[in-house]
Amino acid sequence: MVVNCYLLLLCLHLGFKIALLQLQVGASKSQNLTNAVQEIHHAKEKGAQLVALPDFFNSPYGVPYLEEYAEEIPNGPTCAALKCAALQAGVCVVGGTIPERHRDKFYSTCTVWDENGDLVAVHRKLHLFDVEIPGGLSFKESDMVSAGDEITTFVFKGMKIGLGVCYDLRFFEMAQMMAKEGCSLLLYPGAFTLATGQLHWEILARARATDLQLWVALVSPARDSSASYVAWGHSMIVDPWGAVVLQLDETPGIVLMDIDTKAVEEVRTQLPIWKHRRTDLYDTVSPKYIVKKENV
Amino acid sequence: MVVNCYLLLLCLHLGFKIALLQLQVGASKSQNLTNAVQEIHHAKEKGAQLVALPDFFNSPYGVPYLEEYAEEIPNGPTCAALKCAALQAGVCVVGGTIPERHRDKFYSTCTVWDENGDLVAVHRKLHLFDVEIPGGLSFKESDMVSAGDEITTFVFKGMKIGLGVCYDLRFFEMAQMMAKEGCSLLLYPGAFTLATGQLHWEILARARATDLQLWVALVSPARDSSASYVAWGHSMIVDPWGAVVLQLDETPGIVLMDIDTKAVEEVRTQLPIWKHRRTDLYDTVSPKYIVKKENV
Repeated sequence: MVVNCYLLLLCLHLGFKIALLQLQVGASKSQNLTNAVQEIHHAKEKGAQLVALPDFFNSPYGVPYLEEYAEEIPNGPTCAALKCAALQAGVCVVGGTIPERHRDKFYSTCTVWDENGDLVAVHRKLHLFDVEIPGGLSFKESDMVSAGDEITTFVFKGMKIGLGVCYDLRFFEMAQMMAKEGCSLLLYPGAFTLATGQLHWEILARARATDLQLWVALVSPARDSSASYVAWGHSMIVDPWGAVVLQLDETPGIVLMDIDTKAVEEVRTQLPIWKHRRTDLYDTVSPKYIVKKENV
Repeated sequence: MVVNCYLLLLCLHLGFKIALLQLQVGASKSQNLTNAVQEIHHAKEKGAQLVALPDFFNSPYGVPYLEEYAEEIPNGPTCAALKCAALQAGVCVVGGTIPERHRDKFYSTCTVWDENGDLVAVHRKLHLFDVEIPGGLSFKESDMVSAGDEITTFVFKGMKIGLGVCYDLRFFEMAQMMAKEGCSLLLYPGAFTLATGQLHWEILARARATDLQLWVALVSPARDSSASYVAWGHSMIVDPWGAVVLQLDETPGIVLMDIDTKAVEEVRTQLPIWKHRRTDLYDTVSPKYIVKKENV
């Protein structure tokens, strides 16, 4: 009975302090890494236990930069810097994204390092932004990088966390798969454009949080209007009620916030939509699940 | 070639004028019906081709009213009034919801009547709001009505329309199933409470529209603070970009709007997320689909 109460208390108090670093990213990789490491230590001083970096935090974004900036994981200087910073600061580092080189391909990849400096998760961006409007915008991210093939989650302080990168945020079903696996927080390094940022950055984060009743964190680079790719900024945390708790503007800054499962439990008790899903009529599944059913 | 161009033009111009009637609902069923029919004709005078009524437009909401107000479909006075109004006004009427009596059960049900007065769709609310918070709110809608078992769509002026009722709005996967069936508009008669309306009415509509890139219309009764159940109001239309185009306050009123497929095509061309879904990793399916796969 005492053990049960203790477990219950433990369960109620799962959580940690998160820091989202909206870094200024420039053309110098070494300067980007120095800045990131410095800010990881600053976040630690402010009490952060998990520190998340933005999309493309070590490199400008675009095809011309790939050959020079891409690195193998975990052998390059960026992974070395993140591993070392995580270990020295004693924090978990979610390393935004870097351009990854793997065999003859590039990926947009997020690495996660625990307090011991161990690599605990690697997420390759699953959805690539290819659009060609006759007479309008033409953008083909698949000319630049390849897509990953796996949904990625990891556990920190007893809380399961799901990872997505930028455009991945637009895909409810990916988020639903992570939620169904037990995630209480979805973390997206992302760099929306000014146009898509204005339109959809906040609504997408609030949609995921409201529909899935979990925490959502978005981490963008700060806006650099002189860069070839100009990011929206506005890193934010949305709570499991779907409310934006903290949001930066477009300038460099830090979001610091206590993330706990209490809020997740609270909203799921008061609005028990997870119990009320009509899985007799619909469900979000992976093809593996379908195959499994076939073999029953 | 000429025929193809003609078909293309037809395809580009699918659409119609919709009216959402945020009606004041009182205790008198006959007065509610008279008011609804009158407003259907007013909407027609303003050019509406499809007129949508709110949730529980002929009856107060609650267990005590069921025995007196519930009707068999299509044999009761409410269906007779809607059929007649649709035929006389020459409009399609989406009849909000009424308490339906069927054998020994009650349902919360939406009927749809075309310009000829024919019943073309019947949707029974799929998700029932049951919540019991220790020491807090206790509400058990399943004590009042039973849940339907089918996702419902119909076609008007060449556009497929999906129907949901109130709490159904919270379930992305139901909306996704309707979108996958080709719906360009999702229409939800609903009566959120003041608390859930303030929190989630607008964000849920915008989430469905943004994620699925289609039109979303919500139709609430006007607020009556003296009623036993006080509705949020704020009927609205959200466009396929996820923007609220028109929204009422809590008082009686009408939303009048041209709905076309052009906006749906536009957003899906510019942000082709339907092409980019990773159905190798996830998909939203019905159990029937899973069974079908098993038999392949």
